[in-house]
Amino acid sequence: VAALLQVEQALAAVEEELGVVPEGTARSIATAVTTAAVDPGTLRDRAAAAGTPVEPLVRALGDTADDVARWLHFGATTQDIVDTALALIVRRAGMVLATPLAAASASLADLADRHRHTVMAGRSLLQQGAPTSFGLKAAGWLVALVDAGERCRAAAEAIPAQLGGAVGTLSAFGPGGPAVLDAYAARLALPAPVLPWHAHRGPIAALGAALGGLAGTVGKIAGDLILLGQTEVGEAHERTEAGRGVSSAMPAKHNPVAAVAARAAAIRAAPVAQLLAVALDHEHERAAGAWQAEAPAVCDLLGLVALAVEGLADALDGLVVDEDRMRANLDPTVAAQHVAEVLATTVGRRQAHEALAAAAARARDGQPLRAALLADDAVRTHLGEDGLDAALDPAAGLAAVDALVDRALARWRASS
Amino acid sequence: VAALLQVEQALAAVEEELGVVPEGTARSIATAVTTAAVDPGTLRDRAAAAGTPVEPLVRALGDTADDVARWLHFGATTQDIVDTALALIVRRAGMVLATPLAAASASLADLADRHRHTVMAGRSLLQQGAPTSFGLKAAGWLVALVDAGERCRAAAEAIPAQLGGAVGTLSAFGPGGPAVLDAYAARLALPAPVLPWHAHRGPIAALGAALGGLAGTVGKIAGDLILLGQTEVGEAHERTEAGRGVSSAMPAKHNPVAAVAARAAAIRAAPVAQLLAVALDHEHERAAGAWQAEAPAVCDLLGLVALAVEGLADALDGLVVDEDRMRANLDPTVAAQHVAEVLATTVGRRQAHEALAAAAARARDGQPLRAALLADDAVRTHLGEDGLDAALDPAAGLAAVDALVDRALARWRASS
Amino acid sequence: VAALLQVEQALAAVEEELGVVPEGTARSIATAVTTAAVDPGTLRDRAAAAGTPVEPLVRALGDTADDVARWLHFGATTQDIVDTALALIVRRAGMVLATPLAAASASLADLADRHRHTVMAGRSLLQQGAPTSFGLKAAGWLVALVDAGERCRAAAEAIPAQLGGAVGTLSAFGPGGPAVLDAYAARLALPAPVLPWHAHRGPIAALGAALGGLAGTVGKIAGDLILLGQTEVGEAHERTEAGRGVSSAMPAKHNPVAAVAARAAAIRAAPVAQLLAVALDHEHERAAGAWQAEAPAVCDLLGLVALAVEGLADALDGLVVDEDRMRANLDPTVAAQHVAEVLATTVGRRQAHEALAAAAARARDGQPLRAALLADDAVRTHLGEDGLDAALDPAAGLAAVDALVDRALARWRASS
Amino acid sequence: VAALLQVEQALAAVEEELGVVPEGTARSIATAVTTAAVDPGTLRDRAAAAGTPVEPLVRALGDTADDVARWLHFGATTQDIVDTALALIVRRAGMVLATPLAAASASLADLADRHRHTVMAGRSLLQQGAPTSFGLKAAGWLVALVDAGERCRAAAEAIPAQLGGAVGTLSAFGPGGPAVLDAYAARLALPAPVLPWHAHRGPIAALGAALGGLAGTVGKIAGDLILLGQTEVGEAHERTEAGRGVSSAMPAKHNPVAAVAARAAAIRAAPVAQLLAVALDHEHERAAGAWQAEAPAVCDLLGLVALAVEGLADALDGLVVDEDRMRANLDPTVAAQHVAEVLATTVGRRQAHEALAAAAARARDGQPLRAALLADDAVRTHLGEDGLDAALDPAAGLAAVDALVDRALARWRASS
Repeated sequence: VAALLQVEQALAAVEEELGVVPEGTARSIATAVTTAAVDPGTLRDRAAAAGTPVEPLVRALGDTADDVARWLHFGATTQDIVDTALALIVRRAGMVLATPLAAASASLADLADRHRHTVMAGRSLLQQGAPTSFGLKAAGWLVALVDAGERCRAAAEAIPAQLGGAVGTLSAFGPGGPAVLDAYAARLALPAPVLPWHAHRGPIAALGAALGGLAGTVGKIAGDLILLGQTEVGEAHERTEAGRGVSSAMPAKHNPVAAVAARAAAIRAAPVAQLLAVALDHEHERAAGAWQAEAPAVCDLLGLVALAVEGLADALDGLVVDEDRMRANLDPTVAAQHVAEVLATTVGRRQAHEALAAAAARARDGQPLRAALLADDAVRTHLGEDGLDAALDPAAGLAAVDALVDRALARWRASS
Repeated sequence: VAALLQVEQALAAVEEELGVVPEGTARSIATAVTTAAVDPGTLRDRAAAAGTPVEPLVRALGDTADDVARWLHFGATTQDIVDTALALIVRRAGMVLATPLAAASASLADLADRHRHTVMAGRSLLQQGAPTSFGLKAAGWLVALVDAGERCRAAAEAIPAQLGGAVGTLSAFGPGGPAVLDAYAARLALPAPVLPWHAHRGPIAALGAALGGLAGTVGKIAGDLILLGQTEVGEAHERTEAGRGVSSAMPAKHNPVAAVAARAAAIRAAPVAQLLAVALDHEHERAAGAWQAEAPAVCDLLGLVALAVEGLADALDGLVVDEDRMRANLDPTVAAQHVAEVLATTVGRRQAHEALAAAAARARDGQPLRAALLADDAVRTHLGEDGLDAALDPAAGLAAVDALVDRALARWRASS
Repeated sequence: VAALLQVEQALAAVEEELGVVPEGTARSIATAVTTAAVDPGTLRDRAAAAGTPVEPLVRALGDTADDVARWLHFGATTQDIVDTALALIVRRAGMVLATPLAAASASLADLADRHRHTVMAGRSLLQQGAPTSFGLKAAGWLVALVDAGERCRAAAEAIPAQLGGAVGTLSAFGPGGPAVLDAYAARLALPAPVLPWHAHRGPIAALGAALGGLAGTVGKIAGDLILLGQTEVGEAHERTEAGRGVSSAMPAKHNPVAAVAARAAAIRAAPVAQLLAVALDHEHERAAGAWQAEAPAVCDLLGLVALAVEGLADALDGLVVDEDRMRANLDPTVAAQHVAEVLATTVGRRQAHEALAAAAARARDGQPLRAALLADDAVRTHLGEDGLDAALDPAAGLAAVDALVDRALARWRASS
Repeated sequence: VAALLQVEQALAAVEEELGVVPEGTARSIATAVTTAAVDPGTLRDRAAAAGTPVEPLVRALGDTADDVARWLHFGATTQDIVDTALALIVRRAGMVLATPLAAASASLADLADRHRHTVMAGRSLLQQGAPTSFGLKAAGWLVALVDAGERCRAAAEAIPAQLGGAVGTLSAFGPGGPAVLDAYAARLALPAPVLPWHAHRGPIAALGAALGGLAGTVGKIAGDLILLGQTEVGEAHERTEAGRGVSSAMPAKHNPVAAVAARAAAIRAAPVAQLLAVALDHEHERAAGAWQAEAPAVCDLLGLVALAVEGLADALDGLVVDEDRMRANLDPTVAAQHVAEVLATTVGRRQAHEALAAAAARARDGQPLRAALLADDAVRTHLGEDGLDAALDPAAGLAAVDALVDRALARWRASS
């Protein structure tokens, strides 16, 4: 309701400025807005009957003063006010979202920086593939989160003001209509649309998609945290606190509650985002159903995405990283992945891979891996024992990680 | 397969340039690509067994020459090649899409320009609300289509090259990894990512959303065309041709086949777009399922969106607009909408609306509308007969339409 | 919370009966439930921290008496209580839904019966195809609604009780576990599952799908009502009442508010239903996110479906049917559809269709349709003027309608 | 096309039987079907132009003989033939699906039976919660798969025959229309609908939901298999074969290719299923877009679900279960879960849980768990060393497993 009133006031102010309504109207309307006691309950009942909150609101305010009744809402239709109010609400919600988003990003940046040399297994198809560093993993989360957040901000800021009158012709304003539209948008600090967009919901679809993308990104990070916290992996878990993550049946267990809450919110956000992202088939100049479904869906979605981001920020706040477990979990054969890469620079990719595969097979049969590798001619010839030991260091393949983490941190700094 | 080969060649070229692989390797690989007879059937079978087409392809090419076996695919993993090939395919598909998109836009621009003064009913909740012009309606479609097309192009061009090796560490390249990544992207004219993005699918999600948005926009326009072609409306219909839109049971009927085909394709595209738009939860460094589902879904989606846009272009090509029917359909009470707006400039919005509502009620009881309006004191005093007749002209409220259509055409020209 | 408590009580009662907990426990727990003042605010806070409402609830009740602390929740895990409570809530919601569903069905049955001979245009691809009756149309809506309602009831009643303990082994109960499970289900009048179904959400998916199907069916009927109420069609509209369907910009307009509200709710329900209908991928013995998303989604969905059905019942209550307009709208060529069918019984389908198509073409060029048809040899020979006039009666093709409407009414009666 | 022809033939046969068309017609049509060389390419082109394959097919067949032209397709509309053919195709697809479904179920039944006493960790929120048996886990998968398969079969078999003519009035058949409809359905062994259901898509929605549910169930099982195959878990993996699950970058790795393929197919199936499950808003007597989208979506979905089920059957065929790893992975504290349950039968749930929690805390600080438990008064008093040792056996809590597995196997046997 506050946003609806702000829009009506902006409209009146612009109309007065451009001589569409008499001088003093904007002030009268501002007074009406301040003094009128709009009972929310009554408004809700009338809104249900009328199918819109705007008509009863305009009526209630108009009842307070004669010139308000005359000029309030002049030239506008319900959808003009609702859509523009929604644009304002989305902006504000973006600001609310910014706080946990910044907190989560800062946590990730810190993890990326501190753990850039913390070796762990990189996992592909949920199997260990090759060593990586936890800092690089956190850097990946960070860039994804920063990107998703920026997509949301861009989509939120691209929602234009709406003003067109009954069917988008700006008919009440004569030839000056486009000027009123542009001034109104400027006054509300919203983009001016090329045309009134009553039935063309691209900006809302883009917003829905961006919010869905943010929820999905949160879900991805929360999902990885849950996987890292598996009993059998145990490489990271949420901070422990009294009463946090208690299980009613399993007293010895500490659940990743914040990450689970974030993921659950992301899962719930997805279909609402999908609804907005593709529900563009609005009939003629105003849809009979699709438009009315939109504003509540946007509000639901903003709430769910906020829940998801807050959950993620909570999960990351004080995240306990077990570096020893990370190193201990790393399968020696996987750590040996880099031996093939070093060997490949002399004998080529295929032969190197075959050498590693053969050694890995022998290791599965019980031979120590190092010995199995040294049994290979090429390894002995081209690497030697020292070269092999250097290549077997799990950190040996992480020479590019520092630069990559720095790229990610630079991306993060540029965005905030 | 062609795109996969192009990516492997680009990788080899860049690696040779940066001294990662010996001189001459790129040429050998190019020769292998040209001469190797890769049997698609065999490849498909091996791809199914291996769970990826890249490994058997690399093997088959490597069998042709020794240095190809040595250096082809050096430092890359399957996903590097598949993702980058997908980026190339998406670009090409964008070009394929551009032709019907341009045709549909040009048809719409022509309709907007020619029919800017063709008066018709604007419809809200599928009821006539106030007069508009068909040109303005077409201009609305045009801006929505241009916007949706640009969102797709931007999303397609934002998909970065992928190169990271097994788990995204660029381990095979040592500290020079980021330089290889950037050069590889540049060679393929793709954006370089901040980090390898194996498990961070924001760019694909954004593409899915944009394509879904385009499909939805096509669905909206096709839906409006179908509604305009309703028997009871009859304001526009697809060109008639022998065999086009024939019904097996209803010989007298001509169906809007192209618009229906466009809308059906848009309906099918929506869920695939949704899948991509939010399915970001890829586990750790490579997902076990979500990633494998992506490339076929992108290809399906590109095909369905192309079908939708082609259907729309077909429906708009030679669209028959019935201007007389448009004017005849316009309900006189609706056309009188503007009388209230003109009257409002003197007596204010509320009183003007009440005057019109009262006159409309009397008109529903049988009194001619003009007489019913003249029976109102305010109408007589402030408008008089001449003013009333001017305001009753359905075109009277369309003073802003010219400027609005020009804005839309300028937007269109700027985009192409 | 009431449902949670009901489940805990049923569990205690069954456990006492089967000798799992001491005699008198159930009574103590019942007393605790009645007397304990569980503050909802405190509970919500603790639930957020613990990630579940059950653990703090059990703790709060346990604080009231020693044997409650000992035996309440014995053998159960949080999910046992939440899932079973959800099953109870769904049943109750089904009863709440039953009232508007019965009202809407009764309205439709009445329309089907009264208007079985009210001729109107049947429309295919939004174009008139052949005559039908409004009663048959209403009968189609009725059967679809009855079917969808029954699918919901069946899915709601198929949700089994849940009891398995921490990971579904019924470990606390020894070999008697299955007997406890069956008795517990019986006491709550819920189906007993074959196995605890913690991570196998088929029953919830089926419920989501059924509720989505009901929402979609409501959306279909509401959509048809909106189309029938189009200005250019005007064959049916919602009852008019003061303040109902008022437009802020278009005083002469009466919007189909209830149908639009129903359709908007159906549109919002669809994605939530979709989420439940396919989100079955719950990890291992309890999902980390997917399960937690479920209960709120079910509650949201129940609310939205209720809104949709109530909107439909409201739209149908006192629906104004304009029989004259229905007949007047019927295109003569369309009404002549049946001539081809009658003619076909003698000359065959193809020739008859060609005769009608030719006559229709001549009619479009200005010749009266009857004359155009009589100009055809076959028509003159096989039908004659009288036969033609009989076949041209729009009701001539509706001989089966009575029987069809009766089938629909019988289906309705059998369901209620 | 074969299904379309089968439907036309059945229609003709029934019409001849009921005297609607002359004797001999059915035979002529059968001959036309057998002899007519319908070129698929030509048909496809004409189908695209006409917006349906039925009209050109009817025309092509009619060209072969005079009485075919006369009587083929009599009383039917395109949608009658397409919908009924779809019902037949769905049935056949169900039979195709039955083979891998039976194979997967049999594998699961075998695993459930053989491993009923194979102790492993049950996992909740991806953390170990309490012991379970692999057989019980497999039994859970089995029941879910059997249930999902039965839902599909029921939904497939519930799709009724379609016959209504242009707008569902059965107008060509006079008062005998319902009898023709029922006989036609009976001849095709399909259910007869209450009314023609051209625009009421509940049966298709239910089918989409059921297929989506099956895909989701496959995704759940495949997901669990992938999680069991994680490097750090290693409790089960797909059979190893030459060339199976090879990685291009990681030669030492064996990917769960079949499970990943199954899951990817399930992920792709979900949105198509969702589309069908809720897309019920078909306009009036035939939808302009939604109906046309349906048949290809059903065919896509059937293909994707088949892929998913086949992938699952492949993954389960020869699944390698590592019983030692299962027992070794079991966290001792988790295995001690049952101590609390046994203790609870004497001291009550709360005190028992507190005792276990305290002991678990001490165990985390380094004390052996058994000793930590024995340090508790209640444990010493009520269990004693022997009782404790018995309760510490990970299998101690699995007394109900045998009965539960038997219930599952009985369910499976009853379904096949």
